Amino acid sequence: MDQLKPSSANSCPLTPLTFLERAAVVCGDCPSVIYNHTTYTWSQTYTRCLRVASAISSLEIGRNAVVSVVAPNIPAMYELQFAVPMAGCVLNNINTRLDARTIAVLLRHGESRMVFVDSHLRSLVLESISLIPPQFQPPILILIADDDDEGDFSPNPDYYFSYTYENLVKNGDPEFKWVIPENESDPTTLNYTSGTTSSPKGVVHSHRSIFIITFDSLINWSVPKQPVYLWTLPMFHSNGWSYTWGMAAVGGTNICIRKFDARVVYAAINSYRVTHMCGAPVILNMLANYPRARPLKAAVEFLTGGAPPPAAVVLRTESLGFVVSHGYGLTEARQGVKTLGLTEADVVDPKSGESVKRDGLTMGEIVLRGGCLMLGYLKNQEATSKCMKNGWLYTGDVGVMHSDGYLEIKDRSKDIIITGGENVSSVEVESVLYSNPAVNEAAVVARPDEYWGETPCAFLSLKEGVGPNPPEYEMIEFCRARLPHYMVPKTVVFMAELPKTATGKVQKFTLRDIANKMGALATASRM
Amino acid sequence: MDQLKPSSANSCPLTPLTFLERAAVVCGDCPSVIYNHTTYTWSQTYTRCLRVASAISSLEIGRNAVVSVVAPNIPAMYELQFAVPMAGCVLNNINTRLDARTIAVLLRHGESRMVFVDSHLRSLVLESISLIPPQFQPPILILIADDDDEGDFSPNPDYYFSYTYENLVKNGDPEFKWVIPENESDPTTLNYTSGTTSSPKGVVHSHRSIFIITFDSLINWSVPKQPVYLWTLPMFHSNGWSYTWGMAAVGGTNICIRKFDARVVYAAINSYRVTHMCGAPVILNMLANYPRARPLKAAVEFLTGGAPPPAAVVLRTESLGFVVSHGYGLTEARQGVKTLGLTEADVVDPKSGESVKRDGLTMGEIVLRGGCLMLGYLKNQEATSKCMKNGWLYTGDVGVMHSDGYLEIKDRSKDIIITGGENVSSVEVESVLYSNPAVNEAAVVARPDEYWGETPCAFLSLKEGVGPNPPEYEMIEFCRARLPHYMVPKTVVFMAELPKTATGKVQKFTLRDIANKMGALATASRM
Repeated sequence: MDQLKPSSANSCPLTPLTFLERAAVVCGDCPSVIYNHTTYTWSQTYTRCLRVASAISSLEIGRNAVVSVVAPNIPAMYELQFAVPMAGCVLNNINTRLDARTIAVLLRHGESRMVFVDSHLRSLVLESISLIPPQFQPPILILIADDDDEGDFSPNPDYYFSYTYENLVKNGDPEFKWVIPENESDPTTLNYTSGTTSSPKGVVHSHRSIFIITFDSLINWSVPKQPVYLWTLPMFHSNGWSYTWGMAAVGGTNICIRKFDARVVYAAINSYRVTHMCGAPVILNMLANYPRARPLKAAVEFLTGGAPPPAAVVLRTESLGFVVSHGYGLTEARQGVKTLGLTEADVVDPKSGESVKRDGLTMGEIVLRGGCLMLGYLKNQEATSKCMKNGWLYTGDVGVMHSDGYLEIKDRSKDIIITGGENVSSVEVESVLYSNPAVNEAAVVARPDEYWGETPCAFLSLKEGVGPNPPEYEMIEFCRARLPHYMVPKTVVFMAELPKTATGKVQKFTLRDIANKMGALATASRM
Repeated sequence: MDQLKPSSANSCPLTPLTFLERAAVVCGDCPSVIYNHTTYTWSQTYTRCLRVASAISSLEIGRNAVVSVVAPNIPAMYELQFAVPMAGCVLNNINTRLDARTIAVLLRHGESRMVFVDSHLRSLVLESISLIPPQFQPPILILIADDDDEGDFSPNPDYYFSYTYENLVKNGDPEFKWVIPENESDPTTLNYTSGTTSSPKGVVHSHRSIFIITFDSLINWSVPKQPVYLWTLPMFHSNGWSYTWGMAAVGGTNICIRKFDARVVYAAINSYRVTHMCGAPVILNMLANYPRARPLKAAVEFLTGGAPPPAAVVLRTESLGFVVSHGYGLTEARQGVKTLGLTEADVVDPKSGESVKRDGLTMGEIVLRGGCLMLGYLKNQEATSKCMKNGWLYTGDVGVMHSDGYLEIKDRSKDIIITGGENVSSVEVESVLYSNPAVNEAAVVARPDEYWGETPCAFLSLKEGVGPNPPEYEMIEFCRARLPHYMVPKTVVFMAELPKTATGKVQKFTLRDIANKMGALATASRM
C-alpha cells in the first residue's frame, strides 16, 4: 500500500474553473446567461471569459493580483467570476451599495490593480478613486456598458477608463490558455465582510475551498441539471453563495436582472420558467408583501440564509408556490453547519475551548473545521489567528449541542441579550413580532438597563396602509401573550423603515447605538 | 496574499466517512437500510458501523491493512463500506461470482488480514482459503448470518469462523473514535478489475478520490435529498459506483436485495416507492424482457454504464417508466468522460502521446486527468507506470475528439475490429443486432481473416419463445439493410446464452477464442 503515492495524473489542483470548460463542451449550445434582449450559450460564455482573461493577462496583471468588480447582476459580472481567476488573478467583488469612502478603503486594502465598473456606478467608483491618496498607483479602470442604459454611460473609454469591457472581449484571444493554479490552495477570491459588527475584513478563499463549496451547495440544495436560476441574490454577496460557479457545474441558465423589483421578478419567473432563486429574508418579505402577487404556475425553489426568516413570511411565500429552504452561512465559511464540505462542527466554551455539554441548553460558540473554510483574512494576521486557532474556525455565533449531535444555532454572538442573567435570543423575539399582521420589519437589540443589565428593545416598521402606529403597549401585550415574560421587549420604537447594511441586513449596530443612548438617558434622568 | 497558507482548520483530509457521521445527525431517525423484515435508521447504521470498526481495531488489524468482504447486497455489506475504512483499514470488496481459485489469488495478492463472509458463500470462501499455501498466515474469518437463510448458515462461530458479524456489532464500542486518515491520499479501497482482457489488477483509491467521486456521482445523476435507492447493482462492483457513500451524503434509503430477480425488483419498486437504481445494461435487458412487466406507478431513474445499452432496450424500459441515463466508467477512474471530478480528458495517439486531430474522425486512446483517478495498481508498479504516465491515465479505450471539444467514446480498444483497413466499432454493430425483435443478447468480436485481416463475427442469443434459430443469412441481411457493407458481420453464431464475467459483462475473450479458432480452421481447410 505504501508505495502508492499521488501522481500528476490524479493530484492536479481542484478548481471551479474546470466547470466552465466542461459546460462549454457538454452544454455548449444551451443558454448560459439571459439579460434583457441578450442570450449567450455556454460555448459563447466560455469563449468570452477566455477573451477577457487573456486581455487581463496582456495588461500585465500578474498571478495573485487583485482585480475588483463593482457591478450588479449583469452578464459581465457573471463572466468575471470565471475570467478573473482564469487570468490567475484574485477576484474581488465589491458591494455596490457601499459608499465611495468605503470602496476606496477596500481598493487600497486589497491593492486592487484593476477595477471593472458598471456604467451606472461610474460616478461612485470615480469618487472612490479620487479618495485614494496620490502616492498610490491607481487601478486600471474598465467600463462595463449596458444596452439598457439609464445611467451616466459613455460608450467609449475616456480619460478615466482605459477600455470598455466589450473592447476587452473583442480584442482578447479566444484560444487563451487559462492559468491553472500552481497549487489548489492558491487564492481565488477576496470578499470583504459586510461589517455589521466591526470594520470590513478581507476573506480569502482558495481554489480548493471554492471547488468543495460549489459541490456542497449544489448537493445541499438538491440542484438538478440545467435549472433556470434567477439572480435575485447579488453576485457580490459571497459570489452568489457559489451558485455563480454552481450554474456552470450543472449547465443551468442564469437569468440576470439589474436590481430587485417584485414586479420584474414575478414577470421573469413566468416568462423564463424560473426553477431556482436565492435571497436574504428581506427578499422573501418583499415577495410575500407584493400586493399583486399571484400564485406561481410552477414551484420555485427559494434558498434563503442569514437570520432565519419569520414563520409568517415563509407561510405566505409558500402559499404562493415558493419552496423555501434555509441555509446558514458566513463569508468565512459560506456554508451551513455540518454540510457535506465541513468535516466537523462543535459548540465550545469560548474561553476554555472545551466542548459544551450536549444537553441542548448550554450555549457556546460554534466552531467549524473543513475544506470549505477560508484561508484567512488578507493582511490581518491578528484577526486570522484570533478566529482560526486550535484547528477550528471560531464563528462568533452562538449555539447549543443536542445529545444526538444536532447543532442548533441560537444567534449571532452580538444578538444575544442578557437580561437578569437569562439569555434572550433576539431572533426568537423578532419571530413573534413578525407574526403580528401589521408588522413589516422587526429588529430586537439589547438596551442597557440599570436593574436588569440589559432588556430587549424592539424596533418596528409597519406595513403600508395599516394606519397610524398603535400604542407601544399593544405590541408589548402581543408579545406577552406569546413569550416568557423576561423575553418580552420593555421598549418599542416605531420607524418608517429600519436602517440596513449594503447587503440588506438590518444595521443592528445603528439600532444598538440608539438603544444605548436611550439607556443612558434613562439613567441620567433618574440621577 | 502570499502569507495566507492552509491551516489545520481548513486543510483537514477529505474523506467520505464524514458523510455517515453527518447523516446520523441530520437524518438520524430516517430509514437508512431496509432488508426483508429489518429496517435501520441512519443513527443506528452509524452506531453499528462504529461498533464494527472498533471490533476490527480491537483484533489488531492496523492502519492500511486490507480487509475483504465476500457478500451480496445485504445490510452488513452496506455497513462494511464505512466500518472497514473507519477502522483505518483498506476495504476490499470481492466479486461473489468469482471461483474459489480466483478468490484465493486475490486474498493472497491483497494480503487480506480479515474476510467477512456471507453465510450463503461460506463453502466458496472456505474452499478458497484451503487453496492458500500453508506458509501464509490465513485471514481471520467473520461469518455474516442471514435471517432469510437458505444457505449453509450456522448461527455460531465455528472452527473456521472466529466471530459472527453480529458478535462484532454486539461487543463493539459505540463510542469508538473512528480513524481519521493522516493524509487524504491514504488508501480507502482496493478493487480488482474484472479481468476481461488480462489477469485481475488491484485498483487502489484514496479518501480524496472517493470524496470527489461521490460528490461527482451525485451531481452528475442529479440525485436529490432522501432518494429511495434499490440495490440492483452489486456493491462489490466499484463500491456500487460510489452510491454506497453517496446515499449517506444525501440521507437516502438503501433497499437491499440478495440477488437480482425481475419479479422481486418490480415488487420492491412498488412497495418501497423506489426512485433510483443502477445496473449494467444486462439488468436493463432483464427488466425490459420480464414478461409480466407493467408500467410503473412513478418514474424510476435508472443509471447504467459500461457498454452503451441497445436503443431497443432503452425504448422498452422507458415505455415502462424507467428514465435511463448512461454513464461511462472504468474501475481505475470510476467516472464518465469529463465529469465534474475530472480536470481534463483528451484523445491521443497512443504511440506519440500527441492529441489527435479534433475532427470527430481520427481515433486515438482516451486519456484522463483528475482527482477521481486511482492512486495506482497494488504491487504492480509496471502496470501503474504503463497506464499512468505523462500526467495522464491511459484508459485503453478508443475515442475521437470533435472540433467543439466533445469527446466521443468509440469503443474499448480490444473491441475495435479492423477489417480491410477500416475500423469497425463492435458496439455499433451490436446496437443494430439488438434492434432485431428476436434478439436477446448480441456480442460482436473480430474473427481473423486471411483476406480482410479481421471480419466482424456476431454471437447471438434469442428471446424465449421466438421459435427455432432463423437462418444466419437472415441476420446478415438484417444488418446489411442498416449498416455500411464492411461493418456487417460475415459470421453469425447462435448460442443459448452468451458467456458472462462475474460482473455480468459478456466475456468477449471467450468469444474471441471461438472466433480465433473458427478463423484458424477456415485457413487450414483452404490449405
